[in-house]
Amino acid sequence: MSKASDNSGPALDVLQQLDATLAGRKGGDPAESYVASLHHKGLNKILEKVGEEATEVILAAKDAEGGKGRDALVGEVADLWFHSLVMLSHLDLSSADVLDCLQQRFGLSGLAEKAARPHNDQ
Amino acid sequence: MSKASDNSGPALDVLQQLDATLAGRKGGDPAESYVASLHHKGLNKILEKVGEEATEVILAAKDAEGGKGRDALVGEVADLWFHSLVMLSHLDLSSADVLDCLQQRFGLSGLAEKAARPHNDQ
Amino acid sequence: MSKASDNSGPALDVLQQLDATLAGRKGGDPAESYVASLHHKGLNKILEKVGEEATEVILAAKDAEGGKGRDALVGEVADLWFHSLVMLSHLDLSSADVLDCLQQRFGLSGLAEKAARPHNDQ
Amino acid sequence: MSKASDNSGPALDVLQQLDATLAGRKGGDPAESYVASLHHKGLNKILEKVGEEATEVILAAKDAEGGKGRDALVGEVADLWFHSLVMLSHLDLSSADVLDCLQQRFGLSGLAEKAARPHNDQ
Repeated sequence: MSKASDNSGPALDVLQQLDATLAGRKGGDPAESYVASLHHKGLNKILEKVGEEATEVILAAKDAEGGKGRDALVGEVADLWFHSLVMLSHLDLSSADVLDCLQQRFGLSGLAEKAARPHNDQ
Repeated sequence: MSKASDNSGPALDVLQQLDATLAGRKGGDPAESYVASLHHKGLNKILEKVGEEATEVILAAKDAEGGKGRDALVGEVADLWFHSLVMLSHLDLSSADVLDCLQQRFGLSGLAEKAARPHNDQ
Repeated sequence: MSKASDNSGPALDVLQQLDATLAGRKGGDPAESYVASLHHKGLNKILEKVGEEATEVILAAKDAEGGKGRDALVGEVADLWFHSLVMLSHLDLSSADVLDCLQQRFGLSGLAEKAARPHNDQ
Repeated sequence: MSKASDNSGPALDVLQQLDATLAGRKGGDPAESYVASLHHKGLNKILEKVGEEATEVILAAKDAEGGKGRDALVGEVADLWFHSLVMLSHLDLSSADVLDCLQQRFGLSGLAEKAARPHNDQ
């Protein structure tokens, strides 16, 4: 992450950092990075992971309903979102596109809009 | 969400606003709110939606690979994340838990950590 | 299904009858037949149903593990297989292709092979 | 159909053989049999496989729509059905339950009904 982005402030949130990290791995060595290996294997392999993680979210939620494994559920949702981001990155999209969409759909305020934008200078 | 965090500006991002909105619908009238109706129908119905949206993400990504429907793909990922958040809300969890987990797993910086926390006063 | 196949005996099993029924609906009126309406809407809609039913199988299996809803689980697997068959039919394939594949993979006997073939005259 | 199989009945088709094979592996050595290892790991692991295979069916169908990989699609449906059967076996159900359900729902004839029953002596 460059000095410039370090200076851009709190709006540089975890999803944006993740987007930047994922973008940096797109041309990486498949032998050295899990994300690079997913990109190398292609979209179907990435989508298989999205499907797997969705199933694991569902199973973990059923188990969490019974009172056990709340941390495990959070971990599965993190995996699902993470692999969604890898897929978006593979297709030259990012979390910012998703957050913009959520904001438009749910009528969130301009304040939120600013926070969600990648190049928000505050 | 405390007054302090309401005032804290850009850190109040779209996901946090969405968490707050979803929490407010948990006891709502199922006839007047889609989210309230999902909570009323229960966890299985919410998880059916998570599974449906995961499938729609996969189909939209395959179509986007062919060069069409990039906006549709973003919309499907937004739907998947949205229903993930409804499920987390149903089980008294939130996007903050997921972002914390992502951050811990991917070794993101303390700066990101601050931005992702709900009670960050900056 | 022709008179000849009606007479061919027990090899004409439920999946083969279903294949024939589904094939007959491919050009049908979408307003009068659910299967015809799925074909009319196209492969994505059929695959959405496959994904939905897979999720419902998973949820029903978790509930059945707790001792309730065994009939519901069987119904969900029937729905999953049914929509798999509609998808195969949409792409000019059938249950016979799947049964042949299962047989080859799992080293079932030639006896089973004969029983599984649609035009087996015994 | 051989004399031997005439004794066991023509209804002993590939799915019934598979049911019998799967039932025989339930108490087996996880180190020696894939199915025994799935049973040993438990229902969640089996359902993860059902979810994975459903995703692979969807991806293979999208690829088959483009004219490639029809055999691969058939193989994925076979995997999905196979893991459905392992799940049913884990919960003391079988393909016969699913075929009975399909038959009842789709109003198939008595002939099909007889063919689908495991202990039908005709």
